Amino acid sequence: MVVCMLPPDSTLPDSSQALLTDLYELTMLQAYQELGFDRQAVFSLFVRKLPQERNFLVSCGLDDVLGYLEGLRFSDQDISYLDSLNLFKDSFLDWLKHFRFQGDVFAVPEGTPVFANEPILEVKAPLPQAQLLESFIMNQVHFQTMAASKAARVVHAAGDRAVVDFGLRRIHGSDAGLKAARAFFAAGASGTSNVLAGKRFGIPVNGTMAHSYVQAFEDESEAFRSFASLYPGTILLIDTYDSFRAVDRIIELARRYGPDFSISGVRIDSSDLAELAGKVRSKLDSAGFTQIKIFASGSLDEYVVDRIVKQKAPVDGFGVGTKMGVSEDAPYLDMVYKLTAYGQKDKIKISPGKETLPGQKQVYRFKQNGLYTSDLISGFEESHAGEPLLHQVMQGGKRLAGRRDSLEQIRERALRGMEALPEDIRRLDQASPAFPVHISQDLAARQARLLQKLRA
Amino acid sequence: MVVCMLPPDSTLPDSSQALLTDLYELTMLQAYQELGFDRQAVFSLFVRKLPQERNFLVSCGLDDVLGYLEGLRFSDQDISYLDSLNLFKDSFLDWLKHFRFQGDVFAVPEGTPVFANEPILEVKAPLPQAQLLESFIMNQVHFQTMAASKAARVVHAAGDRAVVDFGLRRIHGSDAGLKAARAFFAAGASGTSNVLAGKRFGIPVNGTMAHSYVQAFEDESEAFRSFASLYPGTILLIDTYDSFRAVDRIIELARRYGPDFSISGVRIDSSDLAELAGKVRSKLDSAGFTQIKIFASGSLDEYVVDRIVKQKAPVDGFGVGTKMGVSEDAPYLDMVYKLTAYGQKDKIKISPGKETLPGQKQVYRFKQNGLYTSDLISGFEESHAGEPLLHQVMQGGKRLAGRRDSLEQIRERALRGMEALPEDIRRLDQASPAFPVHISQDLAARQARLLQKLRA
Repeated sequence: MVVCMLPPDSTLPDSSQALLTDLYELTMLQAYQELGFDRQAVFSLFVRKLPQERNFLVSCGLDDVLGYLEGLRFSDQDISYLDSLNLFKDSFLDWLKHFRFQGDVFAVPEGTPVFANEPILEVKAPLPQAQLLESFIMNQVHFQTMAASKAARVVHAAGDRAVVDFGLRRIHGSDAGLKAARAFFAAGASGTSNVLAGKRFGIPVNGTMAHSYVQAFEDESEAFRSFASLYPGTILLIDTYDSFRAVDRIIELARRYGPDFSISGVRIDSSDLAELAGKVRSKLDSAGFTQIKIFASGSLDEYVVDRIVKQKAPVDGFGVGTKMGVSEDAPYLDMVYKLTAYGQKDKIKISPGKETLPGQKQVYRFKQNGLYTSDLISGFEESHAGEPLLHQVMQGGKRLAGRRDSLEQIRERALRGMEALPEDIRRLDQASPAFPVHISQDLAARQARLLQKLRA
Repeated sequence: MVVCMLPPDSTLPDSSQALLTDLYELTMLQAYQELGFDRQAVFSLFVRKLPQERNFLVSCGLDDVLGYLEGLRFSDQDISYLDSLNLFKDSFLDWLKHFRFQGDVFAVPEGTPVFANEPILEVKAPLPQAQLLESFIMNQVHFQTMAASKAARVVHAAGDRAVVDFGLRRIHGSDAGLKAARAFFAAGASGTSNVLAGKRFGIPVNGTMAHSYVQAFEDESEAFRSFASLYPGTILLIDTYDSFRAVDRIIELARRYGPDFSISGVRIDSSDLAELAGKVRSKLDSAGFTQIKIFASGSLDEYVVDRIVKQKAPVDGFGVGTKMGVSEDAPYLDMVYKLTAYGQKDKIKISPGKETLPGQKQVYRFKQNGLYTSDLISGFEESHAGEPLLHQVMQGGKRLAGRRDSLEQIRERALRGMEALPEDIRRLDQASPAFPVHISQDLAARQARLLQKLRA
């Protein structure tokens, strides 16, 4: 095992992401360079097996990958750190200094529903280049696809009620907080509480108030009045002390101040949300405030949202935080990035249960009466009916013009894609049978030949 | 609800983290400014309830928080984005432009074992300043404490065998990949595969080889020989095709090339790892290669590591990835940041099951015969026997000199702390009873008085 230790260097915010990789990518890279292994390789990114709690995934993260590939450079700082590890030759470090990604990328557009074994992205590039990207591509597409896939379920459960991302505080770190907000919006969420995500991606930003705001006042009514006066049309949090008393106070304020006390809703955040919503609704309605909406938050996920909706509880919108943010019931996917061809030759892995499909591939999607009926994974060069899902998005290291989707386009695609999924695939419980994904005869035969040869 | 939409602005890598916050922090901030609510507040960061799968936590993330607080500035870009939301007055935006954190921070040092309800960090600052920090502090300390707490269990299960972080590819995003590597090392891991974490934090970096390396060759032996020749003392991955055949090939290579084929170990990555390790060990030993070590990876967590160790399987080290990286069995903690005092007055939240302890606090830890026996949460000004855990680390917005630990010091603290935990608290299953955490009579009385008053 290679072990090295250096004094910490956490003072300089070095923005280069080139070292955000596993050490073995770099040691393999040097070996490939030394051996002249630089023929064309194909790597395929896919999920081997869906978690039990997912009937489909929503692809997400491609835009970050392409941005990374276009900008990938090793800084002088990076090179001198690598040099200090005593693993790399000067000639290799020199080569790294001039490293640019010059390969091709084929990918499923962001927002597309995908299933097990279907390539989400394939890289076609000289072996060292294609290998180096593994860790970063995985780190981004894995997380973002996981996040979008979780949010798609919450959005589906919520029906026509708004879902707002409240996850930043317990999502894993700052990058995930930002990218999750984008993935959630892509999957149909209405907005996010994350201000930086709003700025960076143009996502609508939402917010109500915290318990601490109410606590800072001696009097809850005064807290409500001050906030509504500064933010007409705001939403007031009512569970700091007692939700019913808070509603009484709101009714009193609304009566006393009329149009000078304008709020659009109240937020409930604890207890049995469906029951509480019903009682709060009655109170508001009896007082004539039918236009004040009820917004629910607190330990929500698709299962709770589904129950609240099925109980026809009068909840108009959901603030969904932690459990969507960390994809609590499936916090990782079995996503891998595997070599499938090298120098025109098909390559597969034959470890038991981890066999891969060879070569560059295409996925064809079949549709009937507006609903997806099945997918077919084939060799890239094969031609089938159905809609091909993978498109070339990068050539020679440059993004192809016209292939960069706006976040709105991605969101539209995701929403349309989810509508076209068969009803039992959209459901929250495990679909049986799963969505049918077939493998073309030609591709299956290529895999069989290789398995036979390698296991001989 | 406040909703705004702007065209995306993802082109400029704006490094300011000031907007990495929830919108309501900023709207509350403006309200506090308008109302002149700027008296001293105390906010407390703690975990309300440990997950069933954790008997203790290991605090982590303080260093990032203090760095953030010292550097917190709103850039011109930030201000103009906020302006575009039509929520903020010019006078407030002007005030934000000159915002500096000038408060005090008291915290448990990183690497300290902590339990439910114990403050990990408390902020004492004018209310608007203390409020604004919530989202960022939570985002960092929550994730890093969760990660260190998970790793502590894996390290404990592994005993004297090395644990190396292989998680980058499936950890949630780039920031988490980096910070998790630090948290894992702090909790006793030996190293990480994440090169940027090695560079940034001085953590030893480790790596072996990927399946794709073996696949790129026509002949597995040639893959092994080339890698060992470039990296003497390396570890070879043996499960690409058939682990036993691969061991035969390694034995043959070692016999043929002698000292020119130097490896320190082999890595197994699939099937029943304990069984496979036993068989591989026998093969190697029979051939006289007792010095070649066995390194295991593949879907590992503390439970699998524990089983392998308890079966006395000949595994010398573990590469632990996804399940540690996402803290799979407990991917979030019930961590909160709550107002506990304002303007010298105690404040609490009384929502059922979410009652908080008032005021600034201290935690005293009691020890007998080298083992921790109990903790006592008290008011900060109370004096008790036992070791106080919270120390002032920032005064008037500046870190206190001598209070910045090196990562090695944090790791030492964590390892010593875990040794001092009672045996049943260190165990992987749920300890019953939990570690005793008491509340001082004075603090309990203060809470009771407030509860009575607020519920009256």
